[in-house]
Amino acid sequence: MTLPDLADLRGRRIVFSGYHAPRLGEIEAFHDAVLSLDENGVITSVEPKRAPDGNTEDAIRLPEGWLLIPGLVDLHVHAPQYAQLGTALDVPLEDWLQSYTFPLEARFSDLAYAEEVYSALIDDMLALGTTTALHFATVHVPATKRLAEICLEKGQRALIGKVAMDDPTQCPAYYRDASPEAAVDGTRAVIDHIRALPGNDGLVWPVITPRFIPSCTDTCLEGLGQLAAKTGAHIQSHISESDWQHGYVQDRCGCSDAEAFERFGLMRDKAVFAHGTHLSESDMDLMVTRGAGVAHCPLSNAYFAGAVFPLRRALEKGLRVGFGSDISGGPSGSIWETARMGIAAARLRESGTDAATPPEARGTSERRIDFREAFHLATRGGAEALDLPVGAFEPGMRFDAVALDPTCPAGTVRLWPENQGDLRLEKLLYTVSKPNIATVWTDAQARSGSTRA
Amino acid sequence: MTLPDLADLRGRRIVFSGYHAPRLGEIEAFHDAVLSLDENGVITSVEPKRAPDGNTEDAIRLPEGWLLIPGLVDLHVHAPQYAQLGTALDVPLEDWLQSYTFPLEARFSDLAYAEEVYSALIDDMLALGTTTALHFATVHVPATKRLAEICLEKGQRALIGKVAMDDPTQCPAYYRDASPEAAVDGTRAVIDHIRALPGNDGLVWPVITPRFIPSCTDTCLEGLGQLAAKTGAHIQSHISESDWQHGYVQDRCGCSDAEAFERFGLMRDKAVFAHGTHLSESDMDLMVTRGAGVAHCPLSNAYFAGAVFPLRRALEKGLRVGFGSDISGGPSGSIWETARMGIAAARLRESGTDAATPPEARGTSERRIDFREAFHLATRGGAEALDLPVGAFEPGMRFDAVALDPTCPAGTVRLWPENQGDLRLEKLLYTVSKPNIATVWTDAQARSGSTRA
Ligand SMILES: [Zn+2]
Ligand SMILES: [Zn+2]
Repeated sequence: MTLPDLADLRGRRIVFSGYHAPRLGEIEAFHDAVLSLDENGVITSVEPKRAPDGNTEDAIRLPEGWLLIPGLVDLHVHAPQYAQLGTALDVPLEDWLQSYTFPLEARFSDLAYAEEVYSALIDDMLALGTTTALHFATVHVPATKRLAEICLEKGQRALIGKVAMDDPTQCPAYYRDASPEAAVDGTRAVIDHIRALPGNDGLVWPVITPRFIPSCTDTCLEGLGQLAAKTGAHIQSHISESDWQHGYVQDRCGCSDAEAFERFGLMRDKAVFAHGTHLSESDMDLMVTRGAGVAHCPLSNAYFAGAVFPLRRALEKGLRVGFGSDISGGPSGSIWETARMGIAAARLRESGTDAATPPEARGTSERRIDFREAFHLATRGGAEALDLPVGAFEPGMRFDAVALDPTCPAGTVRLWPENQGDLRLEKLLYTVSKPNIATVWTDAQARSGSTRA
Repeated sequence: MTLPDLADLRGRRIVFSGYHAPRLGEIEAFHDAVLSLDENGVITSVEPKRAPDGNTEDAIRLPEGWLLIPGLVDLHVHAPQYAQLGTALDVPLEDWLQSYTFPLEARFSDLAYAEEVYSALIDDMLALGTTTALHFATVHVPATKRLAEICLEKGQRALIGKVAMDDPTQCPAYYRDASPEAAVDGTRAVIDHIRALPGNDGLVWPVITPRFIPSCTDTCLEGLGQLAAKTGAHIQSHISESDWQHGYVQDRCGCSDAEAFERFGLMRDKAVFAHGTHLSESDMDLMVTRGAGVAHCPLSNAYFAGAVFPLRRALEKGLRVGFGSDISGGPSGSIWETARMGIAAARLRESGTDAATPPEARGTSERRIDFREAFHLATRGGAEALDLPVGAFEPGMRFDAVALDPTCPAGTVRLWPENQGDLRLEKLLYTVSKPNIATVWTDAQARSGSTRA
C-alpha cells in the first residue's frame, strides 16, 4: 500500500468499502473491494472482495471507516436562482416569477455577477456530493458559456442550456429572447461553444432548453426540435407541472405537454423533463417509447406543483427517473435532502394526508419507495436518464464518486455497532450532512474535500 | 466593548442582531439590540435598537454577521432510540416495534450502554441548537435517572419520563413494567430524583409518561392520573396517531384517546401529546379547554401515521403546538429539518398529492403554514406547550439561545445582498446546517460550539 494521496486516482487501483445500486431496488455492498482505473479515469475492473492472496501493494486504500458511493446526480437545477435559494417560498407562483425570479435571472446579463453566483453554486454542489447536474442557465449566451467553463474548471459533470423563452405574451420585455431566431441561434452558439471547449472530454455537455411550452412560440419550439435532430444534443424543459400549466397547453395546443413536445420533435432520448406531476398514463407511455426521462423534484412539488409526481407508477412503466433539487423552486440544493423528501412524499401519496378521509379512500393504491429505490434514483437512475456512463461502480463507467466519513465530529452521522448491512446505508442516506462528505471525484480527480487523509 | 468571551453571559449585557417570533405568524428582527441578563441568566430588558448615545462600553458584542435566535424546542424524543435513528424505516410498524425498537429499549437495563447513547444524543441535540427537549426514556428507573443527570451536566433544558407500559397483552415479557404498581412507583421515584438533583434550578423536569393507552392497563393509567394531580408534574404520551391505535382505544375504552386521557386524569395543562393526526374536532376542543398541547412530528407522520396532523385547524382553535423530531420514528433529530418538513407537509395537506383527483377535491381547505409560523412553533410555540419561560427574547424569560454564523465555510448558508429582512430569516431556516450553529446557550451558559470568536 502507498500513502493515500487521493487527488488523482487515474491509472490507480483502489481498495475500498461502500455501496452502489446499479438496478432499481437492489443494493450491492463492497467490503475491501478492489477497483481499477485507466489513465482517463474509466473503471476497468471491480473485484467485490479482495482475494486473500491478492497483490494490492501498489493500490491506494481509502482511510479506515470511509465508505465510497457513486456521485450524486441532480436532474434539475436553475443555476442563476441559487442566489434566492430558500427565499420567497411563501408567495404564489406568479408573484414568485414576476417579482423575484425573472428580475434575478435578468441580472445575468452582467458577467461578473454570473461568475460570482455560478462559482459559489458549483463549489457548493460538489461539496454536497453532486457530481453530475443538469442546469438551466438564463437567456444570456455569454453567461451560459461562462457557466460551462466554470463547470469544466471545477470539475462538475454538467449539462447546460441557454434558456429559450421568446413569447412576448408570457415573458417580460426585460427578460426574453428577442425573437424565435434569437432563441434558436443563441442555443446553437452555446452548443458549439461547449463542444469546442479545450479539454472537455465528456465532462460538460450542451442542452437544448425551452423554458416550458407557455414561454415559447411554436416557431421557437419547431426550431429547437430541428436543432435537436441536427445536433443530437440533450434536451430539457418542464412538463405538466401544475394545473395552470397543464390547462394552458391544452388550450393553446389542444393536447398535453408530452404530445406537444412530441409534435415539435423534442420528445426523444437524452431529453429530461422536470416535475411531470400531472402526466397521464398515455403521456408516460409516450415518454417511455421515446426514451425520455423525468426529473422528480419532491421538495419543489410541495411548493409549486399542487401534487406529487406519481413515482411508483412511472417506475413500473419503465420510465427513466432521477431526482432534481429544482434550485430554487425547492428550498435545498442537496440531493440528500431531495432523496429524503422523495421517500416521504411517496409515502404520503400512498397513505394520503387527511385522517378525516377513511383509510381506503385517503391515498392512492401506489406502493411507496424506500431508501433502496431512493439511492438508485439519486445515482444510477439519474445517470441513465442522461445516458451517461456514471452512477455505479462497473467496468466502462467513469469514476465519479463520493467518499463518506461517518466519524467526522462536525457531521451528523452516529454509527452504532447494531447498524449493520443495509441498515448502515439507510442511516447514511438519512443522516449524512456536508461535513461527512470527505472527498468528491469526477473522472477520478478530486474536486472537493480532502485529498490526503 | 470587551473582547467577546461567550462562555458565561450571566449578569452581562449583550449587543446583537437576530430574530424571534413570540407570537404565531409574526417575526421581530433585532439590529444592534441590547439585552440584559441577571445573575441567573434571566432576561431583564431588551432594547430592540441600541440608542445612538447608549453606553455599551461594558457590553459583549456578538461577532460581526452572527445572528441570534431563541433556542429550539423538541417536544417529542425517544432518547434510547437514538441508536437506531434513520434505520428500519422501511418496515411496518409492528415489525419496527417488535424486531427493532423494543429489543433496543430493553438494552437500557445496562447503565453503561445508556450512558453512551444518552451522552451522544444530548451532545448532538445541543450542537443542532435544540436547547429544550421532552424525552421518553425507557421503563428502567436507573437509566432514566441517569438521563436526567446527563442533561443537567451538559445543560440541555430537558423534561424526562420513565416510560410506563405494563399491559402484558401488548408489551413483550422482556420489556415491560412488572405491574401497574411498578409503573407508578417507578414514575414517582424518577420524579423525586429529578426534583432533588443538586443544582437543578429549572433546567431538568420530571414527566409522567404512559407510552400510549394500548400499552397501559386502566389501573396503571388511573395511578398515573392520581400521581399527576398530586405532583403537578408534566405529562406526555402518544395520542390518536394511527388508524390502528385510534380503533384500538375506541374498542377498549368506547371513546377517543383524548376522552380516555381525560377520564384517567391525564388531560390537563403541562401535558403534551405526540402526533394527534387522527384527533377529531371535539378532541381538539377538549385539549384546548384543558390547556394540553400537541407535539407535531411531520417527519414521523410520513412514516407511521398514515396522515398528516391538521396543523392549521389546531392553530385556529388555539391549541398549543410545537414540533417534535420523534427520534426515531422520524429519520432526523434536527428541529431544523422537522420545521422544513412541517411547512412542506402543511402545503401537501392543503394541495393534496394526486393530480388524478381534480384540484377542488384533491386536498383540504386548510391553509398552509410558512416559515413564519414554523419559526414560532420551533421556538416559543414549543415552550408555551411546556409552560416554560423560554423561546423568545423577552423580560422574565431565561436566555436559551442559538448564535448562527451564516458565513461559516463548512456550513450550507449563502447569504447574498438581495436576501434582506424576512427573506434572510427564511433562507436561514431552510439552509442552516450544523456548522452554521456557532454557539448554543441555556441559562446564559454556553453548552455547545465556540465560546470565544
Ligand atoms: Zn424548474
Ligand atoms: Zn413517539
